This record gives sequence, structure tokens and C-alpha cells, in this order.
Amino acid sequence: MTYSMVSHLTCPKCKETYDADSIQQLCVCGSPLLVDYKLDEVKKHVTKDMIAEREQSLWRYHELLPVKGVVNKVSFEEGMTPLLSLPALGRMMGIPNLYIKDEGMVPTGSFKARGAAVGVSKAKELGVQNLAMPTNGNAGAAWSLYAAKAGIQAHIVMPEDAPEITRKEVSISGAQLYLVNGLISDAGKIVADLVKEEGFYDASTLKEPYRIEGKKTMGYEIAEQLNWTVPDVILYPTGGGVGLIGIYKALLELQMLGWIPEEKLPRLVAVQSEGCAPIVKAFDEGRTESDFWENSTTHAFGINVPKAIGDFLVLDAIYQTNGCAMAVSEEEIRTFQRKVAMLEGQFVCPEGAATFAAAKKLKDRDWIKEDDEVICLNTGLGIKYPDAFDVEVKTMEPFERIRL
Amino acid sequence: MTYSMVSHLTCPKCKETYDADSIQQLCVCGSPLLVDYKLDEVKKHVTKDMIAEREQSLWRYHELLPVKGVVNKVSFEEGMTPLLSLPALGRMMGIPNLYIKDEGMVPTGSFKARGAAVGVSKAKELGVQNLAMPTNGNAGAAWSLYAAKAGIQAHIVMPEDAPEITRKEVSISGAQLYLVNGLISDAGKIVADLVKEEGFYDASTLKEPYRIEGKKTMGYEIAEQLNWTVPDVILYPTGGGVGLIGIYKALLELQMLGWIPEEKLPRLVAVQSEGCAPIVKAFDEGRTESDFWENSTTHAFGINVPKAIGDFLVLDAIYQTNGCAMAVSEEEIRTFQRKVAMLEGQFVCPEGAATFAAAKKLKDRDWIKEDDEVICLNTGLGIKYPDAFDVEVKTMEPFERIRL
Repeated sequence: MTYSMVSHLTCPKCKETYDADSIQQLCVCGSPLLVDYKLDEVKKHVTKDMIAEREQSLWRYHELLPVKGVVNKVSFEEGMTPLLSLPALGRMMGIPNLYIKDEGMVPTGSFKARGAAVGVSKAKELGVQNLAMPTNGNAGAAWSLYAAKAGIQAHIVMPEDAPEITRKEVSISGAQLYLVNGLISDAGKIVADLVKEEGFYDASTLKEPYRIEGKKTMGYEIAEQLNWTVPDVILYPTGGGVGLIGIYKALLELQMLGWIPEEKLPRLVAVQSEGCAPIVKAFDEGRTESDFWENSTTHAFGINVPKAIGDFLVLDAIYQTNGCAMAVSEEEIRTFQRKVAMLEGQFVCPEGAATFAAAKKLKDRDWIKEDDEVICLNTGLGIKYPDAFDVEVKTMEPFERIRL
Repeated sequence: MTYSMVSHLTCPKCKETYDADSIQQLCVCGSPLLVDYKLDEVKKHVTKDMIAEREQSLWRYHELLPVKGVVNKVSFEEGMTPLLSLPALGRMMGIPNLYIKDEGMVPTGSFKARGAAVGVSKAKELGVQNLAMPTNGNAGAAWSLYAAKAGIQAHIVMPEDAPEITRKEVSISGAQLYLVNGLISDAGKIVADLVKEEGFYDASTLKEPYRIEGKKTMGYEIAEQLNWTVPDVILYPTGGGVGLIGIYKALLELQMLGWIPEEKLPRLVAVQSEGCAPIVKAFDEGRTESDFWENSTTHAFGINVPKAIGDFLVLDAIYQTNGCAMAVSEEEIRTFQRKVAMLEGQFVCPEGAATFAAAKKLKDRDWIKEDDEVICLNTGLGIKYPDAFDVEVKTMEPFERIRL
């Protein structure tokens, strides 16, 4: 049995195809490439019961991943993150069937580890020795650490304002770190130049086709954890949007395999900050692509992406699933970060908190119904953003005592 | 079948026994209490095959945990953390069979989550409404978040110098936070007074008997992950030492159950910093208790414990397993934190890094042999200690380009 049942790469825009055995970046038409599998083969040889017996990581779906040689797998056992019921918060929000998919529970503390695990493994398989990427922090951290394990030199460019902790992760791994006094779009231009000058592998979002394959496993896991059904709604904090694109791709693949019912897909919700909401604006205007969002700002740094290269794929996934896009304020993000912690004991990241804020608004507008099964995707640990809020507390002397 | 096969509590010093259905703190003689199980019943009703089929968390061992009602279980699916081979680092150290047990992969990013999961669940079962504890940070963070989920009010006292991120975790959960201009021993005195004044549950290390039951599951997991064998050496960063006591207790229980061979226990190594090494000093002097370490200091904050209440249990576990105690310098900790990241892509905490530094020294002294199977216990995420090292990097302007 082959470890991967990958077939080839296809351009979702112009339908051009490419092989998956040599380095590919964007399509000649400028679009990201997507990975196709021999789903008939998978259907013939792989069953849900076989999957159930396998390791508790995203590699349990290895036939549906692009890495052909298990020897190239670079893994810290990432994936199969908890899908937990949130009864107290759900009661407060009027959504009794509220769940969190907790992506804080992966190496490097953010869901970027999924993309890095599959992306770096495939890069290793393709013989890559140097990779470069712009990042808002967490992706750079994840790719640096996986690259270190793989013996690949990483070159990472991030905005100066990105969470400081991610600098430490990049630096300690031995990656080359560059800060830029600007946005991720500025970092992207610097990386594009470096790639052109040095011939490095461009690991920018969607400029290599495999990160999305790691991210899509969130979709597989949600289905498997719900005993091969799908929820009614999935809310996803949307910067580059790769996770949302990936989840949609995963669910279509599962339908084609006959592993989930044909008749239902979850309504996918792209959640953004009011300070950076290009997808929301495009959705509200019924468009299929977004415009660059000028002067974007949000403390949910991972979703500060003014123009996503895969915007058309995100919008397509929303339209195809009768989903929507929703912006929330900085204050709503802060409020829900605290509510999730106080009611459910989970310290989610601001991006994750945004999905709860959006769920509340959508419930209030009756877009989410009381009996909907709703999954909020928390993309990382709250502790990666220590500056998201302040703690005021007076220091006692050792001889002092507490009197309530 | 009963969920827990707990029997009663026993004092390891004076052998007095107590019931496990009402609140117990220390023995009347002042010693911590340990939990006994009906191991004959467990042996009769539970098999290794049954365990293998269960959920991927520490609750898979529920008969060997003290929580009687599954309804009282407070859990974020903690446990079953990765046990990963470290081939590159092992080669460098001359220990080809080197492994990391990675406790960064739990809720709140530190192994304290295990103790909190079982400790808070049992507190909930016993009807506790307020708990108080001194902490070097991570335990307070974990107990605060689990207490929030359980609906218990936590009161946390930590040194002002404890990792700042843990303040945020405590605060956001809704716990009462107090800082003290002193050490954890000073925080302990403040908590002792608060407990006495208010009648709160004292959740200080080993002053409640159940935290250790959560921690011991690291021992169960290591054995299960090694297919019910034990390694030759386990290195553990030792502050209060509860994990080491717990691992030793777990392995004895597994021997009594006949689930691991009778003839072999791993040599347990207590690793401390040269700036706070009371257990190492006691071990070197062949003593069974330690002295208070004056003016203790280390950036591996979790092991800055000048006098552990369970010191006699730690030393006993070391002696009984032909283990040892080893101190490492601040510089060695920093060096190995970087080596683990660069060679293996894992950003461990300083306490975890200390175990690798100690393993290297013990290999150099031939105390660890080349064919020994060696497990270093990484107790948490490196990102919880952003100040452990500095990153020097110049900021580029958006128009600048990288030239190598």
C-alpha cells in the first residue's frame, strides 16, 4: 500500500495541472495550486475503521496527504486536537450545542503547526534546502521549528509588531529572522525578492501547495470526532484563510469518499476584525474577490491580512456552503476572550475569541438557530499574546497577610 | 463497574489512614498523605487491552485515579503527551536512545495541568467552593483555569518574579491573584494564614493528596507508550518533586498489577539548578531529608523551591531506584534550550532544558551508558518564558531588500 495517494496539482482558476514530484509554486496564471488525490484508490483501500485504529495525529489520514515517503515525515504528533463542548458559555449565548476545536493543543501552540508539518515534510521530500516566508508570527514560528527538525534553513520576515514571543521561537530554532517596519504585505515583497535572488523555496501562504493539505485535516478531524457527521456551522478567524479553504476542501473530499453524507455541508463563517475586514466587505457586496484593506489594524494579529491571495477560494467556500462573513470589534474580541476563560477555563487567543464574538452576533440575528451545532475554531494559545490585556495587582510584602 | 477503585489515604511516615470521601489535607503528623487503591480489584476487572481502547487522555486510567463520579471530571483532554525520539540530539550526546516526554502539549502548556485536572475534579467532588495555593506560576495558572471550569473560586499567591504570563492566565480565569515580594516559601505562609482564617481548601503542593495522582499518570503513560516496559533512566526537573514522586508511585502500582516486569525500575534522576539544589545536596550527603536552600535563584523558575515538603519522598524514590540527583548551571540550561530547538525543533522550557544538560553530564561521567534508554521530561512550553533569552535583530524598512 502506498503511503500517499496523491495524484497531481490543479489550478482552480485555469485548470492547468502540474506534477507533485517536483517543486511547484503558483500556477503560471498566478493562482494558487490545489492538490488532487486518487480518491477512487483511497475509497477502495482505506476505511473509516482503519483510520480509527491509527496514531492520534493528522498523519492518520496519510493517504490523503501529499507526502509519499514516510521517511520524510517531520512530526511532533500534531493534530487530533480536542473538540470540547462548552455548556456554560453556550447557555449564555443561547447556543446549547456550542463546541471549541482547540488548536492551542499542538506543537508551537498554534494551528500553523498543521501546515508546517505537512509543508515542511513535503519540502524535505522535494529536496528543499532553504525556504523563505513572510508571516504575522505564528506561521513563521511553526515553519522555523519544523524546518530545524528537517534540517532545512528557514528565512523568516515578520512585521515588527508581530507577537514578540514568535520572534523567540524563530530565533531559537536557528532560522534567519528579519523584522520589517510594516505589514505582512511588506514582508511578502521582501520575501518575493529574496526568493527571486537566491532561488529559495517560497513558503508564503498558498504560494506552495502543501500547507493547505495540513490545514485541511482540521476538517477531517471535526467529521471523525462527530462520528463522521458534520456540524451546522463552523466559524473560522480569517486572515489568509487557508484553514477555511482547507476545511472546505476536506469536506468535499470526504463527501466524494462517501465518508460523510452527501446532502449536508456546514455553513462556513469567515470571521474578521472590524479593523481588517476585506473578506467581509467583499461578501457584503456579493463579490468573488476582495480589495486591499488600507491601514488595517487589530490586536488579533493573525487576522491582520489586508489582501489574501486565496480570497476567491475563501469567498467561494462561503457561498457554496450558504455561509457568511462577519466582522467583530476589538472590544468584542477582548470581552469574549475573558468570557471563555471565566466560564470554560480556556485561555484562547484573540483570533479564537473573535469566533465566539461572531457566533453571539449571528445568534442574536437568528442566523445561527438555537438547535444548531456550532464549532468555533480556536487557532492558538492565549499565552502567545501576553499583551492582549493588562493585569492590575498590588505586590504584598512577605510579612503581609490577606484579609477578605 | 466503578469509575474509581480508590480505597483510602495513608500517611507514608506514621502509617495513619484516612478516608477519601471527605476533605483531607496533611496527616496529623505533618506528612503528606498518599492515595491507596484496591489494586486486587483493578487487577481483576481492568486489562491493558481495555486501557488501549480508551480516550487519549490521562482519564484512560480512571480506576487508578481518585475521582469517583465521572460527572465530577473536569477535563480538557489532558495527557497522553508525545514520547518522541531525539536522534540528532542523542547522537550529539552519545545517547542514541534519547527521548523527550513533551508536557508542553497539555492545556495551559505545562505539566501542572495533570495535577490540576485530577486535583480540581476531586475538590469538586468533595464540595470545595474556595481553594488557595502558593505557586511559582504554572501551577497557579493551571489550577485557576480548571477551577473556573469547575465553578470553584481560586485564590493564588505567587512571587512577583514568577513568569509574567502566568499572571495573565490566573487573572483571565477570574481567580483572585496576589503577588508577593519574595519566594514561593513566603507565598506559602500567606496561603497558610488565608486557609486558617477563611477555612479554604489548601491546594498547596502535597497539602492536598490528589495533585500527585494526576502527575503520576506520566509514569503510566511512559510505560504504556513503551509497550508496558520501562526505560533505563528518567530525568525530571525537581522543584516540589511531585512528578517524580508520582512517577515512582505509578511504577510501583504497575508492578503490583503485573502490568510491567517486577525486576526493573528506571533510575530516577532529580535535576536541579546550581542556584537551588537542596535535593542534590541532601543526596550527595546521603541524607533522607533536605535543608532549606538560602538565597535560591534560577531562571528555571519552576524549580526554584528552597525546601520541598515532599523532599523525603523524592530522596526515597531516588535511593530505591538507584537513581541520583544532579545540579546544572544557568549557562548549561540556556545552552541546551538552544540545542534542543536547533537540532530537534522543540522549544522546551528552561526546566526541561535542565534535564538534557544533566543527561549530558551523566553520560560524560559514564553514569548513563550508551545503550541506556533515557527519557528527559520537558515540563512545559518554552514560550511561557519569553525572557529566558534575548533576540537581537535589526528592523528593515519596507523598501529594503535582503542581500545574503
